Amino acid sequence: MKILVVNGPNLNLLGQREPSIYGETSLEHLVEMLKDHGSKMGIYVDHIQSNSEGEIIDALHNAVGKWDGIILNAGAYTHYSYAIRDAVAAVKLPVIEIHISNIHAREEFRRQSVIAPVCIGQITGLGIEGYLLALDYFAKYFKKKS
Amino acid sequence: MKILVVNGPNLNLLGQREPSIYGETSLEHLVEMLKDHGSKMGIYVDHIQSNSEGEIIDALHNAVGKWDGIILNAGAYTHYSYAIRDAVAAVKLPVIEIHISNIHAREEFRRQSVIAPVCIGQITGLGIEGYLLALDYFAKYFKKKS
Amino acid sequence: MKILVVNGPNLNLLGQREPSIYGETSLEHLVEMLKDHGSKMGIYVDHIQSNSEGEIIDALHNAVGKWDGIILNAGAYTHYSYAIRDAVAAVKLPVIEIHISNIHAREEFRRQSVIAPVCIGQITGLGIEGYLLALDYFAKYFKKKS
Amino acid sequence: MKILVVNGPNLNLLGQREPSIYGETSLEHLVEMLKDHGSKMGIYVDHIQSNSEGEIIDALHNAVGKWDGIILNAGAYTHYSYAIRDAVAAVKLPVIEIHISNIHAREEFRRQSVIAPVCIGQITGLGIEGYLLALDYFAKYFKKKS
Amino acid sequence: MKILVVNGPNLNLLGQREPSIYGETSLEHLVEMLKDHGSKMGIYVDHIQSNSEGEIIDALHNAVGKWDGIILNAGAYTHYSYAIRDAVAAVKLPVIEIHISNIHAREEFRRQSVIAPVCIGQITGLGIEGYLLALDYFAKYFKKKS
Amino acid sequence: MKILVVNGPNLNLLGQREPSIYGETSLEHLVEMLKDHGSKMGIYVDHIQSNSEGEIIDALHNAVGKWDGIILNAGAYTHYSYAIRDAVAAVKLPVIEIHISNIHAREEFRRQSVIAPVCIGQITGLGIEGYLLALDYFAKYFKKKS
Amino acid sequence: MKILVVNGPNLNLLGQREPSIYGETSLEHLVEMLKDHGSKMGIYVDHIQSNSEGEIIDALHNAVGKWDGIILNAGAYTHYSYAIRDAVAAVKLPVIEIHISNIHAREEFRRQSVIAPVCIGQITGLGIEGYLLALDYFAKYFKKKS
Amino acid sequence: MKILVVNGPNLNLLGQREPSIYGETSLEHLVEMLKDHGSKMGIYVDHIQSNSEGEIIDALHNAVGKWDGIILNAGAYTHYSYAIRDAVAAVKLPVIEIHISNIHAREEFRRQSVIAPVCIGQITGLGIEGYLLALDYFAKYFKKKS
Amino acid sequence: MKILVVNGPNLNLLGQREPSIYGETSLEHLVEMLKDHGSKMGIYVDHIQSNSEGEIIDALHNAVGKWDGIILNAGAYTHYSYAIRDAVAAVKLPVIEIHISNIHAREEFRRQSVIAPVCIGQITGLGIEGYLLALDYFAKYFKKKS
Amino acid sequence: MKILVVNGPNLNLLGQREPSIYGETSLEHLVEMLKDHGSKMGIYVDHIQSNSEGEIIDALHNAVGKWDGIILNAGAYTHYSYAIRDAVAAVKLPVIEIHISNIHAREEFRRQSVIAPVCIGQITGLGIEGYLLALDYFAKYFKKKS
Amino acid sequence: MKILVVNGPNLNLLGQREPSIYGETSLEHLVEMLKDHGSKMGIYVDHIQSNSEGEIIDALHNAVGKWDGIILNAGAYTHYSYAIRDAVAAVKLPVIEIHISNIHAREEFRRQSVIAPVCIGQITGLGIEGYLLALDYFAKYFKKKS
Amino acid sequence: MKILVVNGPNLNLLGQREPSIYGETSLEHLVEMLKDHGSKMGIYVDHIQSNSEGEIIDALHNAVGKWDGIILNAGAYTHYSYAIRDAVAAVKLPVIEIHISNIHAREEFRRQSVIAPVCIGQITGLGIEGYLLALDYFAKYFKKKS
Repeated sequence: MKILVVNGPNLNLLGQREPSIYGETSLEHLVEMLKDHGSKMGIYVDHIQSNSEGEIIDALHNAVGKWDGIILNAGAYTHYSYAIRDAVAAVKLPVIEIHISNIHAREEFRRQSVIAPVCIGQITGLGIEGYLLALDYFAKYFKKKS
Repeated sequence: MKILVVNGPNLNLLGQREPSIYGETSLEHLVEMLKDHGSKMGIYVDHIQSNSEGEIIDALHNAVGKWDGIILNAGAYTHYSYAIRDAVAAVKLPVIEIHISNIHAREEFRRQSVIAPVCIGQITGLGIEGYLLALDYFAKYFKKKS
Repeated sequence: MKILVVNGPNLNLLGQREPSIYGETSLEHLVEMLKDHGSKMGIYVDHIQSNSEGEIIDALHNAVGKWDGIILNAGAYTHYSYAIRDAVAAVKLPVIEIHISNIHAREEFRRQSVIAPVCIGQITGLGIEGYLLALDYFAKYFKKKS
Repeated sequence: MKILVVNGPNLNLLGQREPSIYGETSLEHLVEMLKDHGSKMGIYVDHIQSNSEGEIIDALHNAVGKWDGIILNAGAYTHYSYAIRDAVAAVKLPVIEIHISNIHAREEFRRQSVIAPVCIGQITGLGIEGYLLALDYFAKYFKKKS
Repeated sequence: MKILVVNGPNLNLLGQREPSIYGETSLEHLVEMLKDHGSKMGIYVDHIQSNSEGEIIDALHNAVGKWDGIILNAGAYTHYSYAIRDAVAAVKLPVIEIHISNIHAREEFRRQSVIAPVCIGQITGLGIEGYLLALDYFAKYFKKKS
Repeated sequence: MKILVVNGPNLNLLGQREPSIYGETSLEHLVEMLKDHGSKMGIYVDHIQSNSEGEIIDALHNAVGKWDGIILNAGAYTHYSYAIRDAVAAVKLPVIEIHISNIHAREEFRRQSVIAPVCIGQITGLGIEGYLLALDYFAKYFKKKS
Repeated sequence: MKILVVNGPNLNLLGQREPSIYGETSLEHLVEMLKDHGSKMGIYVDHIQSNSEGEIIDALHNAVGKWDGIILNAGAYTHYSYAIRDAVAAVKLPVIEIHISNIHAREEFRRQSVIAPVCIGQITGLGIEGYLLALDYFAKYFKKKS
Repeated sequence: MKILVVNGPNLNLLGQREPSIYGETSLEHLVEMLKDHGSKMGIYVDHIQSNSEGEIIDALHNAVGKWDGIILNAGAYTHYSYAIRDAVAAVKLPVIEIHISNIHAREEFRRQSVIAPVCIGQITGLGIEGYLLALDYFAKYFKKKS
Repeated sequence: MKILVVNGPNLNLLGQREPSIYGETSLEHLVEMLKDHGSKMGIYVDHIQSNSEGEIIDALHNAVGKWDGIILNAGAYTHYSYAIRDAVAAVKLPVIEIHISNIHAREEFRRQSVIAPVCIGQITGLGIEGYLLALDYFAKYFKKKS
Repeated sequence: MKILVVNGPNLNLLGQREPSIYGETSLEHLVEMLKDHGSKMGIYVDHIQSNSEGEIIDALHNAVGKWDGIILNAGAYTHYSYAIRDAVAAVKLPVIEIHISNIHAREEFRRQSVIAPVCIGQITGLGIEGYLLALDYFAKYFKKKS
Repeated sequence: MKILVVNGPNLNLLGQREPSIYGETSLEHLVEMLKDHGSKMGIYVDHIQSNSEGEIIDALHNAVGKWDGIILNAGAYTHYSYAIRDAVAAVKLPVIEIHISNIHAREEFRRQSVIAPVCIGQITGLGIEGYLLALDYFAKYFKKKS
Repeated sequence: MKILVVNGPNLNLLGQREPSIYGETSLEHLVEMLKDHGSKMGIYVDHIQSNSEGEIIDALHNAVGKWDGIILNAGAYTHYSYAIRDAVAAVKLPVIEIHISNIHAREEFRRQSVIAPVCIGQITGLGIEGYLLALDYFAKYFKKKS
């Protein structure tokens, strides 16, 4: 099984940017953790980060036929990118939306995700642990299916 | 470590009620799964279900000093019970909000949680698996703290 | 055929409370009228009144397998109880919503019913006569079905 | 006692138009049923159908002094015709609003009736049976008055 | 003269819950203070606290004929319980609404009271002193009436 | 100079309909008063009343080249008939909007006129006197122009 | 009979300010015209202009017992001064609201008058002629009353 | 193949009314152009224009069984006539909505069509050319179907 | 201790203006009552009334260093004067907001106070008694502080 | 004459993505059809597709001086890209907006185009045929101009 | 060149009022700085501060013919004073709006300026430096014009 | 000191695009002016322009450690790019937002900036002069700091 992790705008700054909100782990370290955690469960994990809406859409399109599921943290695009939403709906892969912080406890505009309605589910507020839990979910999800 | 699972209105019908949305596992079976899963990680799990807003508030109040964390699926109260929100805020225990279905892909009124802003995080759309992931999260959460 | 009448908050005061709006018949008398009217058509009628949202949900759950249809006046819960709405949707019994007064001619908040979308229909403004008409409807409804 | 039934736009297509929503009875048959049902209770029933807002207003005006009550299904005019609302308010006859389908379970715009606040009550979702129940109501209503 | 004090959800935690907002006096102590203060003015005071919407409605109904006035702090139910509002309107006793904190200086949802329109008045932000001032008001109110 | 008075839905009931709001003068008498008042100022006045939106539009179209100005009371169409608005804008005759009652002191929906933005002005709340004042205005208006 | 004309903010600039909207007549000249027109009908007219909300309120208060009616153009205060509204309601004199321009054909915020609901009527868009028509109305209004 | 063109309110003024917006072609000329254009493709075209909402509904009803498709410009009814919408939905003929002007570049209220959701498509802003393009579309549409 | 009472627009008419809402006590009498009541508790009370927003702001500014607390009834300015709000926030004196009538039981616009968020609390609906209760509160408030 | 076709996000998946909504023609085939269709009318057609908002803006800028008109399907950017809107407005070339599906019959957010107000027109719901009709329009449009 | 600086409500407290937001410079010192800065560029600067909306309007009116430009900080009036807006529009002098604090980073109501649409521009958040920059702008602005 | 100027979408067209709104200076010339103006004050200025949201975010990220402050005109992204907002908040450099035109005097959507709340201030409507004033501000800002 192969899972692609897609991180959106500003997540390249993970660990540096407002650590009280986003924690102190760097993106590099997070990716390592995900690969390790995946390999223990026989899941091959890879990762893409981009600040560009178009590149995220491209990544989703390219995932078809190559990956079994996607873990997506679209950053602030979450709240207005109907284009990414359309891409998620079009690729027909299972997608789990992740937010590191509790988006419901912050500014009003962060409470709405235009992408969530076309994902299978969403994990918010559980820090980078959320990515690992999503991986766990996929492990069971594909076991059931097969 | 001791975790209390609190299920709100209509969750007693789990397995019978609209299985295409909520799955076929019964509440009894879910509780068993949670206890088993917990015991493997050294977590004592217990469970309360009530259709009454007042009883859910009582359960949250009584949890203080007895439980280390709470997994809460407040059912439809999620969308308007500021009284349960106040109880969550008052008890100062870590609370994770769970929804079995992807509330963002259903009726508009289900997209807002008035309780989420005072929880630490939220897992939605991952079926009853969401409860187990929350338990996993607590296992790591308390390990870090201790 | 067996029909359960469920009356919500403040309907225990029927006959005493603002008679210019709700009429002068007491709840006891209404129940008698309904039982009489039902028995003439071979319908067994019983009645539950509660001021508690949780008890109304319990009553709806318990109705499954015991009753053929429900006449529901959820009082002011009509306007915000998504939990009762979910219970109505879950039990899959035919439910008719009744309001004694014309809710469209009163305060703005009374014009919206969050429960009506999952009922089969609604009768408003026809006084306690509305309950009797609902009974008449059920009489024909089940005749057609059988 | 004389009751006028006023049916608004598109109701001439009853039985042909979206039968899954509006049923299979034709307007002609409905009118017959109403006349029969009325005559059993000593009520003379007649019927007008028009697709024109102006003609419906004319019909309401002309009813004064000739009819004792009106059963009104204003079709889609229900949701925006303040002119019909004013006509109902002006004629001072008791009017019951009928909708064949459960308008609360359909598009958002169908949930509001601008006419209901000046009617005595409303029956929705009970199919063409709703017209007959309204007739029953009028039978008792005028008995009480006299 | 007899005054009933009704406290709603989470007020049993008074003194423990967020003391920076709600103060350090416990509910027990508040009740004592109210009884003492009342007895000095010849007012008999008693008290009910419940986390249940239904029980608060029951308490209001039972007050008829037994109590001369009610001091009501409905906690978070203040902001959505149209059922409690209806109970207040139905019992026709003078009711004063109290809030310990300044609800206008907190979250947006706390600024609206659906119960206030059917009370005689409201005291907010003056801490537990607000209850005592309400008692003072009733002392004068009934003196004037008699 | 020739002025056409156009009265919309329900104004045929003038004098009979809610006289506390609309006064006791009948439409026939109003028309007479307008003709008399006009003839004193050398203005020929005529009148059309219709309950039909389409006929009002026809009347406005037909006015081109025959009338110098229009006094329009579109009744409840005022609040939603963008079709009449378009007709007023299309005919390019000066139009004064009249309302007998003070529409700002009644229901919320009566406060907005979708037609007023394309009229030259509006007189509301001055009873049938408003029609006469509009005529006076036209008398001066055309004197200035010529 | 004595009528007071009250003009609000920026109306001192009449004739100078945006003449394409407000015309070329100066305030002084308007006042003269009003006095002349009044004297012909046996009405004594006087005038106050102020840019200050407080002074307009004072003027309305002082009118009690001295004037029979008021013609009020509150300028931009029209759209938000609930304080002037309260003053109009308090003085219990008949007040007619005037706007020189067609406020419905300008910016959205100009379409709402918070004062109009407590006036007897409103004339808009008829230029300074509106003031004279209001005077005419008062002449007839008091003739009828006496 | 037979196509009916239905034009709504004020379109009889085509060519005369605000030519900068609607162009200079008269309705008569447009109809001729449509008939010519149709006949070249073997399509019989006819035309109805009415300012009356009811007549437009009648025309749509009468089209069943006689016409293969409809080109509808409902004029300002587009923005509020749920009755015409219901008629379009009821007749189950393919309907294309046309607007001569770019309704998105004009007043806010013109941007919403309540009829478009039940049409197959919409052409706006391309002048009277839009009608001809709709005819072209139908030519291909029916060719594909047959 | 010295307390300043600040009354806003239209409160000079107290006793004359709508006595069914505001009571029959005149402002002069109210001020006397407040001075008397204050002097019994060793509080020096004085009073300012103004219909002018600017003068109320001046009064608040001048209070700094001279008064220990302020009782403020800003009349209708309550609902829109962000300038008075800023003045209250700037002076950093404890301010209690008073409304004689129950503002929650009147027009919608009276339900919002833009000033309350920067006051310590609010008393509404308890008539002029509200001022006296505020004085009582200050007596205890300063006792506690000292 | 030279026409540039600009397709936005996810349109590269044409033919694969939700064929029930978008049809089965691939983007490559559509482009061929457009080039063929154009060449028959002496129009040179070329095509750009990008998932990136910035590249679409670049394409529009580069079109100045090279192309005579643009056919734009901005995909989901249609609903929020004010940046593309500004680019369309800036380049001053005639632009026709195309949507393959009937955006008015889908999710609420798809009903608004922020780009349409600066285009000359819009064709929606007519499938890929819409692009060809736009080409036809341009053919006539430039013939008229020249 | 002569520039008038107009400061609105509460700005007399500059330096004393919430220095963390508004800085520690007093109004007197600011005025001095402005006069000095102006004189270096050959601009005569004077200053008016008032807490009264009416006086600010008077000041704007009086500026005509005496001053070349205005720097306006209307304080909280910024957010609702349509009367000051009208005054700015009427005087036809170039006006620059200043806010010391970043109004976009504070309460929601501070984000809207009803005056800005009739000013030439706005400087916010740059402290008292904003006034000096406005002066610099005027220096260049008039140089260009002359 | 080093200041980076970041210009967003469509600003590459400066001087060509709607010169009545944006002026006639080209972007190249503006950059030269800024460099000259900066060098006079010992500020090194450089410039980036991009139509791509992602590239603007990249530019902001790359500025950390290299630049002391940023002057940002995000073009139309200002109104919806929460991703750029997050980048501004993350980099923790002082940012001043510039708009050449008075965004408050244009379309409604241009009045809101989602980026301004995380900038230190905003200058709008002062043409390209706004950039120079921002530079002046930074000159003083860093002088004070050092």
